[in-house]
Amino acid sequence: MIYFDNSATTKPHEEVIESYQTVSENYYGNPSSQHQLGYDADKLLRKAYEQAANMLGVSNQEIIFTSGGTESNNLAIKGIALRYQKHGKHLVTTTIEHPSVLEAFKALETLGFEVTYVPVDASGIVKLEAIKRAVREDTILVSVMHINNELGTIQPVQAIGEFLAPKKYTFFHVDHVQGYGKVELDITRARIDMLSLSGHKIHGLKGTGLLYLKENVQLFPLFHGGGQQGNLRSGTENIAGIVSLVKAMRMVSEQQMHHPNHLHELKAHLISRLSSLKQVVINTPEDAAPHIINFSVPGYKPEVIVHALEERRIFVSTKSACASKSPDESAVLKAINLPANRTKSALRISFSYQNSEGEIELFYRALQKILRDLSQVMG
Amino acid sequence: MIYFDNSATTKPHEEVIESYQTVSENYYGNPSSQHQLGYDADKLLRKAYEQAANMLGVSNQEIIFTSGGTESNNLAIKGIALRYQKHGKHLVTTTIEHPSVLEAFKALETLGFEVTYVPVDASGIVKLEAIKRAVREDTILVSVMHINNELGTIQPVQAIGEFLAPKKYTFFHVDHVQGYGKVELDITRARIDMLSLSGHKIHGLKGTGLLYLKENVQLFPLFHGGGQQGNLRSGTENIAGIVSLVKAMRMVSEQQMHHPNHLHELKAHLISRLSSLKQVVINTPEDAAPHIINFSVPGYKPEVIVHALEERRIFVSTKSACASKSPDESAVLKAINLPANRTKSALRISFSYQNSEGEIELFYRALQKILRDLSQVMG
Repeated sequence: MIYFDNSATTKPHEEVIESYQTVSENYYGNPSSQHQLGYDADKLLRKAYEQAANMLGVSNQEIIFTSGGTESNNLAIKGIALRYQKHGKHLVTTTIEHPSVLEAFKALETLGFEVTYVPVDASGIVKLEAIKRAVREDTILVSVMHINNELGTIQPVQAIGEFLAPKKYTFFHVDHVQGYGKVELDITRARIDMLSLSGHKIHGLKGTGLLYLKENVQLFPLFHGGGQQGNLRSGTENIAGIVSLVKAMRMVSEQQMHHPNHLHELKAHLISRLSSLKQVVINTPEDAAPHIINFSVPGYKPEVIVHALEERRIFVSTKSACASKSPDESAVLKAINLPANRTKSALRISFSYQNSEGEIELFYRALQKILRDLSQVMG
Repeated sequence: MIYFDNSATTKPHEEVIESYQTVSENYYGNPSSQHQLGYDADKLLRKAYEQAANMLGVSNQEIIFTSGGTESNNLAIKGIALRYQKHGKHLVTTTIEHPSVLEAFKALETLGFEVTYVPVDASGIVKLEAIKRAVREDTILVSVMHINNELGTIQPVQAIGEFLAPKKYTFFHVDHVQGYGKVELDITRARIDMLSLSGHKIHGLKGTGLLYLKENVQLFPLFHGGGQQGNLRSGTENIAGIVSLVKAMRMVSEQQMHHPNHLHELKAHLISRLSSLKQVVINTPEDAAPHIINFSVPGYKPEVIVHALEERRIFVSTKSACASKSPDESAVLKAINLPANRTKSALRISFSYQNSEGEIELFYRALQKILRDLSQVMG
């Protein structure tokens, strides 16, 4: 089996599942309980905070463990809006964010907030100048993703962060779900106030995620209750999930450190092969992230190609999984003004460190054969 | 080891951990992906919805899987308030709810909602009459727990449900976290609109929970995004967690069915033993739930007794784990107007089906010895 849909979800590492299991069996105490089982669980939890914070280069108390990327994005966006609305009710984001960002903003519009959706340029990048024009006196939040999930484009988050840094009540959120472990991002240097991560995109488990929240930035919590996680995310901590997330973070960090060129080599190989196919147009710009390659086969229904590949046990996607049940064309490709014959024929390949050059070669030959067969049927 | 703190959290069943592991290894596809790995995951997910719905006697589309009881309570309460605020901004709950209910209501007060906190009587029960007096024309939500987490008292939720049923825009939420699998509750007969469950209170895994939401009742979601779970709780479904929750629900249901008297027998045995200790006053009324027994040892610091028991590997708690880090006395015991010497000396024993008569006997002898030793030290 060749799995090229790692931006939808990844296969959890064996070690990650094992750590989940060990913690569930041996550290089942409630970290809030005032007896040894509680203390043991709490101690393990503190260690997880410390390790996560170290990997991100931030402080322990700046980490909030969540149930995934969608919760992290919603907590950051709604949390700032509801907490700081007295300072202004204007919010800024881009047209190519993940649905868990875009829909959170749309929901806030129904509660009386005003949102500016900044468009991107033809290569799928939001320009700093466009953000500058959108930000007003009453803007309390700017949310820009680091790596786009469909195109792989890298957004200028550090430039945006530096622009926003002097503005005391304009907070900066970055959805780093697709970038973590693949494209470096220094939270402190980029002057980020909030940053979202998801476990299941990095060979961790579904139901795990994290929000970095800069010290002294406050949020209106989504979950009120027992006051866990500094009162910002109440609820008995999912310690097994938390420990497994930290394990997955460490594993992907190590892969990035030890194999910094692996994904780049895979991408170069794939681009070179795809370029040799005359029916294919590559949508992902050259300077994008190394693990997401979007291309179109104009005139062909992408579902047909997906299923033909699937018959050969090769798994790719048409667009973002979170939007793939809507019959519409790719919203992200449309946002960069590609013609309809490209937005309606797009395929996405997304790598993890587990993929190999050999798999790309097998994929290329399969695609070549499929396109030949289809052109004969259609011709 | 004797674990009598099952209302704080339970040890996950081996079978539950195994099902989590199997699903994580074999069904890691994203249920929204349009290829076989996605379909396989989605099929398993549909089966989980069906099984959960069957056990609760409701329809598949009335189930929302969440990350736990705190999320379920917050989703129900904030979801109704924000969705139906045009019909009124008045909300009703009781003074003895879990913090994840009480704090959610307090948070809504900061957003302009008005909340009536209905007091309970001296035995810890909220009277139907008191609810009737609190409900107004502009009341859009009433939230009453089924089983109190500190006292074990059973609230008259069916009577309240029947009273509220004719009121079209007054929705009824029940926190059933402590009751599920221990005290029968028929969702349909009790005319409940929303009901919260937690996995880790029934030997399931932390990070798993469920909200029953009656058909045609709408919510303002806490998580907007990809539109999963009928647009009410976006985010890639934690399939392994969901399947493990359904497994835990089935196991506790079977225990309740096959051993309907087990918890009652344990309680009767414990009460009879405690009654023989002259220093002990039992706070839990006789007609309360069978698995929670609250008692005080006036004049003694409960922490001292907890730690003395712990040295003998017996684990009990002073009050709710979710509130136990606050140095205050038990809010629930205070709400029923017990004198300070009882509210400040309370201990809670909470059973699961795994506990035995033999454990109660060992606990009783240990407590008897501890009280004798302490009275000598103090005397």
